[in-house]
Amino acid sequence: MNLILLAPEDIRHDRLASVRDPRRLRHLREVHRARVGDVLTLGVQDGGIGRGELTLLSDDEARFALETLDTPPPPALPVHLVLALPRPRMLARSLEHVTAMGVKRITLLHTRRVEKSYWQSPELEPAKIHEHLVLGLEQARDTALPEVDVAKGFRPFVEERLPQLLEGRRGLVAHPGMPSPCPTGLSEPCVLLIGPEGGFIPYEVERLLEAGCEGIHLGPRILRVETAVVALLARLF
Amino acid sequence: MNLILLAPEDIRHDRLASVRDPRRLRHLREVHRARVGDVLTLGVQDGGIGRGELTLLSDDEARFALETLDTPPPPALPVHLVLALPRPRMLARSLEHVTAMGVKRITLLHTRRVEKSYWQSPELEPAKIHEHLVLGLEQARDTALPEVDVAKGFRPFVEERLPQLLEGRRGLVAHPGMPSPCPTGLSEPCVLLIGPEGGFIPYEVERLLEAGCEGIHLGPRILRVETAVVALLARLF
Repeated sequence: MNLILLAPEDIRHDRLASVRDPRRLRHLREVHRARVGDVLTLGVQDGGIGRGELTLLSDDEARFALETLDTPPPPALPVHLVLALPRPRMLARSLEHVTAMGVKRITLLHTRRVEKSYWQSPELEPAKIHEHLVLGLEQARDTALPEVDVAKGFRPFVEERLPQLLEGRRGLVAHPGMPSPCPTGLSEPCVLLIGPEGGFIPYEVERLLEAGCEGIHLGPRILRVETAVVALLARLF
Repeated sequence: MNLILLAPEDIRHDRLASVRDPRRLRHLREVHRARVGDVLTLGVQDGGIGRGELTLLSDDEARFALETLDTPPPPALPVHLVLALPRPRMLARSLEHVTAMGVKRITLLHTRRVEKSYWQSPELEPAKIHEHLVLGLEQARDTALPEVDVAKGFRPFVEERLPQLLEGRRGLVAHPGMPSPCPTGLSEPCVLLIGPEGGFIPYEVERLLEAGCEGIHLGPRILRVETAVVALLARLF
């Protein structure tokens, strides 16, 4: 928690914030070892960043006197990430990694090799997803909450949704064996598509390429999704 | 397990391998859904890669008839990674990530902000470290086992060990706020040093720079060690 992210309901009035959830209270006590009088970095969800003085720390509340929170969050990555739904624990970690790296649009996609049971995981509940996004933002000192949606059918996604996403954006399908190495130093908007463990099936790769995406690879090593997604983002931008 | 990594003791004779540990047997059954007659990819630790036919699968043994295992493993990264010892679970995942990416030399370093208790973790036992290295190799279809050592004193490391490591290698200290962005597309040998959660302390950064390392950064976002290490390797090479 390199930044204490304030939800709108944490702000009592212009100059006072009150944090009451056990996770943040525990973190303030155990990791920050915070004491009344400490000045910490805070940010408002989808707003600015600044400092605040801890004026009260009790079992169920931390209260901050806020200075001006007007520093903008770090720049976002110009990418819409389309991720074949990983298994639940890998989803959780991947959401934290990519949020910390600055991804702001994430679509979780069903593909042939996604296990159907993953769609029933509690990790997909909005509150759980929100929790991982917040952890990623707190880590990276960011305030801009990513948007996450789901596409539970591959064909409707490719036929109806992808053409819109590709308007004004470069489409990149990361898949082992594709002809081009992952490009570097991009600044234009992209859609980055990453398959599940075991990869996209050949039919899916064909449809994505037909839709106008370029196939890219990360070399001969096959990486786990959570490793590959970080490596791709780090190399692309 | 994109490759079944055979330890020397798994090889009965020239053309026969026998796998007996529960982890790999379970994986063969549950993930590969392997049946007698299936041909799978195998590799010999620190040796070549090839195919083998499953000739027996019982509760306590999988037996393979080996073809020639003469495909070399994928290229290694020319980097010696010096990682401030992360907390145990992050160590485990980081070892898997960096092994999958092709790192072959890893030194785990004590620095001021490494919690002393981490050095007592069971994750540091050679057998546990070996397990994570093997998982990384199996993921990336590699056979060359990384070497991992520890440096439990920062000063002896900087004064005695680092000068040797930097002979013929470029030293890079990844630390927020350093003047240069992380370089890309390197092919020369490097030593990459990464601090703990909370970073190196200023004294440590100074000593590393004095020793001849360059300070590099990944931008304004503060990443967790396991995210940063993947992002740095992906960008450097």
